[in-house]
Amino acid sequence: ADAEAGKAISGVCVACHGQNGISQVPIYPNLAGQKEKYLADSMKAYRDGKRSGGQSALMIPQAKNLSDEDIANLAAYYASLPAGGK
Amino acid sequence: ADAEAGKAISGVCVACHGQNGISQVPIYPNLAGQKEKYLADSMKAYRDGKRSGGQSALMIPQAKNLSDEDIANLAAYYASLPAGGK
Repeated sequence: ADAEAGKAISGVCVACHGQNGISQVPIYPNLAGQKEKYLADSMKAYRDGKRSGGQSALMIPQAKNLSDEDIANLAAYYASLPAGGK
Repeated sequence: ADAEAGKAISGVCVACHGQNGISQVPIYPNLAGQKEKYLADSMKAYRDGKRSGGQSALMIPQAKNLSDEDIANLAAYYASLPAGGK
């Protein structure tokens, strides 16, 4: 997976998950430093209709735009950011 | 919410999410420093049958044991831990 390619398509994520993967809004999770595999699994679960509840109404349509490669790259990017921001 | 009370019932969480809320296993998310509201919403979604996919087969039965107060306390505890561990 290619973290730089993930960063390049992360613009749409920033509004909710923050510029450095640290959310400014309590209902949205921080992504910075999260486990890469978990991030990828979450995006796939949203995309494939396996995760509802929470803010899934926001994430499902976003995830439907993502290929497996996009998901792998986004997960690599957010996992690479420092946990807790900088 | 009472982070100390959350800590007191967090023993069952440690196996997957780590001693300091930092998972040692890629499929399990870090919880340390995550947004309190997000953590609570996630546990409720598992408990109430709204979140499947991923490792939900593990989390659903765990969450079914939790009251709203337990969930609030666990969320407060994990949100209080330093992101990235220490």
